[in-house]
Amino acid sequence: MVTAARWSLRRESDAARSAGQRCVSCTKNFIRRRFPPLKWGPTYDSHKAASDAVAGITIGLTLIPQAIAYAGLAGLSAQYGLYSSFAGSFVYILLGTCPEVNIGPSALLSLLTFNYTHDTSPEMAVLLCFLAGIIELLCGIFHLGFLVEFVSLPVISGFTSAAALIIACAQIKGLLGLKYKAEGFKEIWVQVYHHVGEARTWDIVLSVCCVTTLLLIRMLKDFKVKEDTPRGRTLNKFFWFFANARNALVVVVCAFIAFIFKSKGETPFVLTGEIDVGLPAVGPPPFSTSFGNSTYGFMDMCRYLGSGVFVTPIIGILGNVAIAKAFANGKVVDATQEMIALGFCNIIGSFFRSMPVNGSFSRSAVSNASGVLTPFAGVYTGVMVILALTFLTPYFYYIPKATLASVIICAVIFMVDIGKVKPMWKSNKRDLVPAFITFFACLLIGVEYGLLVGVAVDVAFVMYGSARPEIVVEKITDIPGVPPYLKVTPDSGLMFPAIDYLREVVSCTRADEKLSNMPLVVDCVQVHRADFTVMHGIESLIKDFKKCGQHIVFHRLTPSVRRVLDTITIPEFITSSSDSDLHHILRGFTLEDRIPTDTKLEMEMSKRSSSVSIKDSGV
Amino acid sequence: MVTAARWSLRRESDAARSAGQRCVSCTKNFIRRRFPPLKWGPTYDSHKAASDAVAGITIGLTLIPQAIAYAGLAGLSAQYGLYSSFAGSFVYILLGTCPEVNIGPSALLSLLTFNYTHDTSPEMAVLLCFLAGIIELLCGIFHLGFLVEFVSLPVISGFTSAAALIIACAQIKGLLGLKYKAEGFKEIWVQVYHHVGEARTWDIVLSVCCVTTLLLIRMLKDFKVKEDTPRGRTLNKFFWFFANARNALVVVVCAFIAFIFKSKGETPFVLTGEIDVGLPAVGPPPFSTSFGNSTYGFMDMCRYLGSGVFVTPIIGILGNVAIAKAFANGKVVDATQEMIALGFCNIIGSFFRSMPVNGSFSRSAVSNASGVLTPFAGVYTGVMVILALTFLTPYFYYIPKATLASVIICAVIFMVDIGKVKPMWKSNKRDLVPAFITFFACLLIGVEYGLLVGVAVDVAFVMYGSARPEIVVEKITDIPGVPPYLKVTPDSGLMFPAIDYLREVVSCTRADEKLSNMPLVVDCVQVHRADFTVMHGIESLIKDFKKCGQHIVFHRLTPSVRRVLDTITIPEFITSSSDSDLHHILRGFTLEDRIPTDTKLEMEMSKRSSSVSIKDSGV
Repeated sequence: MVTAARWSLRRESDAARSAGQRCVSCTKNFIRRRFPPLKWGPTYDSHKAASDAVAGITIGLTLIPQAIAYAGLAGLSAQYGLYSSFAGSFVYILLGTCPEVNIGPSALLSLLTFNYTHDTSPEMAVLLCFLAGIIELLCGIFHLGFLVEFVSLPVISGFTSAAALIIACAQIKGLLGLKYKAEGFKEIWVQVYHHVGEARTWDIVLSVCCVTTLLLIRMLKDFKVKEDTPRGRTLNKFFWFFANARNALVVVVCAFIAFIFKSKGETPFVLTGEIDVGLPAVGPPPFSTSFGNSTYGFMDMCRYLGSGVFVTPIIGILGNVAIAKAFANGKVVDATQEMIALGFCNIIGSFFRSMPVNGSFSRSAVSNASGVLTPFAGVYTGVMVILALTFLTPYFYYIPKATLASVIICAVIFMVDIGKVKPMWKSNKRDLVPAFITFFACLLIGVEYGLLVGVAVDVAFVMYGSARPEIVVEKITDIPGVPPYLKVTPDSGLMFPAIDYLREVVSCTRADEKLSNMPLVVDCVQVHRADFTVMHGIESLIKDFKKCGQHIVFHRLTPSVRRVLDTITIPEFITSSSDSDLHHILRGFTLEDRIPTDTKLEMEMSKRSSSVSIKDSGV
Repeated sequence: MVTAARWSLRRESDAARSAGQRCVSCTKNFIRRRFPPLKWGPTYDSHKAASDAVAGITIGLTLIPQAIAYAGLAGLSAQYGLYSSFAGSFVYILLGTCPEVNIGPSALLSLLTFNYTHDTSPEMAVLLCFLAGIIELLCGIFHLGFLVEFVSLPVISGFTSAAALIIACAQIKGLLGLKYKAEGFKEIWVQVYHHVGEARTWDIVLSVCCVTTLLLIRMLKDFKVKEDTPRGRTLNKFFWFFANARNALVVVVCAFIAFIFKSKGETPFVLTGEIDVGLPAVGPPPFSTSFGNSTYGFMDMCRYLGSGVFVTPIIGILGNVAIAKAFANGKVVDATQEMIALGFCNIIGSFFRSMPVNGSFSRSAVSNASGVLTPFAGVYTGVMVILALTFLTPYFYYIPKATLASVIICAVIFMVDIGKVKPMWKSNKRDLVPAFITFFACLLIGVEYGLLVGVAVDVAFVMYGSARPEIVVEKITDIPGVPPYLKVTPDSGLMFPAIDYLREVVSCTRADEKLSNMPLVVDCVQVHRADFTVMHGIESLIKDFKKCGQHIVFHRLTPSVRRVLDTITIPEFITSSSDSDLHHILRGFTLEDRIPTDTKLEMEMSKRSSSVSIKDSGV
């Protein structure tokens, strides 16, 4: 059974590999995977084109205002948001696997970008984008996708909730029309407290209007009239489109209002102000920059970015893989390909002065709702962004900052995962610990370190789990003709942290007088792994037992563990492979005197081990 | 069975606690544990006193020269070695549990002390001792003993081997009578290369003599004449004592030779030189110091010591616990008490200007061989050290550095664990990875970071193990009346890193056309743990299956896992608690059409879950 199992495992894990990251051997398949258009291209027809067009345009209407807003969040001027929005869309068409994903600025990455590059030059953000892309690409090439599995859901939701909260608070500045520099949750509130007196009435009014409007229209999405009439259907379509275009709508309207006031010579709102017109200067990412009247070379910039070079891509990958999984419909998500695609999006993006980008959950939801069918929808989005850059940039001057702040707030408040607390409490209360630790750590010491803290807690939990396996100790007395014995059953693989625990539990049975002269049987049927430390621990366990003349038998060793234990050098290493076998041994113990004589036991053992080997081959 | 198991586990783990760290409730026991003399004191008799005296004096003869040598290794002048040698001996009598352990300077801690405090004042070393003691005490109080279990044997031997090698190389200076400053493996050799020209003939001669003598006498230990005559017995006793006193012997002889030369006005060897005479000035550990003509406050000193404040106590604890285990003879080692004892040894020691101390394996071996019976032997050792400080310090001036270097080398070369490589290779080749990584990391980036790297590798291995459990997939076709189905059996607890892997493996079975329309059974009998992430993963697994109209059944859920999965909100969550139960369900599937209709399945489920609940209570 065991051998069969291991065989089928091996076969299976191969299957897993071949399906998970399809057999790299057959190149054709490999190319099809690395260049997905070969899969969906051949079957591309007018129907798909139509639905992609609708989706692409809808996403564009969500993306453009988001891009401008997130640029502000990242501490960059508006155009950088748009610079970041088209390269990704085009690249993802060629490399992406998940039609719903739209690569562009996202709230999380913008926040990280701000944390790592604030008070410096935009070049830093662009370089960060480039380096993040490199790392993501490497992760893809070396199949490091599994790394993201080590971030548990509780930590992710703790992280996103905290980030969303920080982002929302960062918008108070815009909502009230205040001017101050602040990074980090605490400082924001300190600054707000100091400047709240300078709040500008009209900005507040505008913010309130925008937020309420956005939230109201958002509700409209779920509002449906009866679909029995064509009029009803069109109405629903209209409502839905109207709801998804809400950001664009609000921004346009507010900008128009601001424009009218301006033409009357009044500026009641804080405006976005002058921004570079037209497309970005194309060129390699900047490897030197200067701010604070001093120049920095490539290495200085990297040193300045520090951990951001790794944290940013990890968050980026996390986001993309999460989205891909959410829309996978039970298909295997090709994390490797996703990472490669994301990597190229950032690398190529950095040639168009992009800041770090990844898929945004809000946009993916929109494109899914818009019935997207292939990644080709990205073309329309990308084109819209380019058009916006070419023709609309002059008008971005008039977008009130309060409006952008409102757009961001309405986007992120739904990222705060209060809803997850209850299910966690119900399913496994212990999971609330990493969640809350991560949440508060993010608020207090910054999202990037908060995440690391959370992962550390995760790791600690897993380590503790493998250090304290369930060890069942039973006193078996009811088998006729067999003397009573103690049965110790570890529940899972014995990795090195667990062996000391096993020794302790076993030694404790000896503390009890009544038990101390019973033979002890360690049932290893559930132990599939063992390492050198374990081997050593068991060796001294056997030594201990020999010292006090108590018998210890290792029952139902799995071949892999047996291979390890066979290197033990002590003679009295008794194993049994079946219950009958075990009972035979136990009877043998009672016949002879309590203190085992090596010879007799060796004989015993040789007999057993032979029978064992037969049985092993038999099963 | 399962419930019974968990119950017996709970009972057992209590037992473990009560035996491992005896029930804190009953104070009497508790005090007996925290103050061990109450255990061995009452039965202390003249016989024990005699053997303790012999052992204590023998250890003293090993300790004193080692202490002087290790002081040099730590970059301190000779007397600090002795300052570090008596407090520990006395404190351990009152708090220690393991008679063989002798607390004092050890090669590893001296090396660490040097790494963290070289080019500063001795006050730093004393403060390090104090802080290390505090940490060790806290570890004891908060039962953090299990932390040392997370350092696997391969890492420990990689670490000790590298440390021993570095220590040995650091002695070349003394052996050749060179003068240079060097820290770290590489720099040592660079310096040796530059200064080898200045090697002093007489020192080399002396070193060669000392090393050969020490190694030869060491062999004498195992040399035995026939014991049939009393003369033979006394001879053996003499040989043995002679062998264990070898360090003292060699040091005395060499010092005497140097003294004679000196009286003739010659100094062929580099000598230890002037050292403070008499006992140390007793007082609280220094909370400020000054070196490099600038003064440092407490915080500055802590900042300077940095990670040493944590690494030193960890290594100290590791050493002590390892020794205690080695001599435990199958008794449960009370790690907590060991840490408390070690903590007090360092804290109190720091009032006598001690450097960090812990048990030394070489001395423990000696005391074990000298037939020590209780920790009281420490009294004799401590008194000897005090006598040495009071009367002998003037003569330490004459001890040649070459001799001390030889003493150290002969002590540490046997710490290089080449012997462990072969068994590791035989038992579990993978264990060589952490061993060698640790070894080379220690040589290249310093022992303290090397150890951390090693632990990181250990953790990575355990994490990977729990991220990739063995998942056995079998196609079951041979059960009469039951349609063929796929059986997926994870081998151990599903922690969050594993669930994605499970999903992948399962989804891969679907990649295969023939399998994709068989019902899939996940046998959870070996799954004892599950967390929120897992619950979520399984929820989407069920969703996936629903999408493609394939059935999934969760077989033999353990109560703990069931509790978690019961929070899943989807209706089609089918469980079976026994094979007959499972077969019934599978037959049900074939009767109905392939695509499951919720109603029917809900009916199915309710039926099952009722039977399940009954069965659960039954077991």
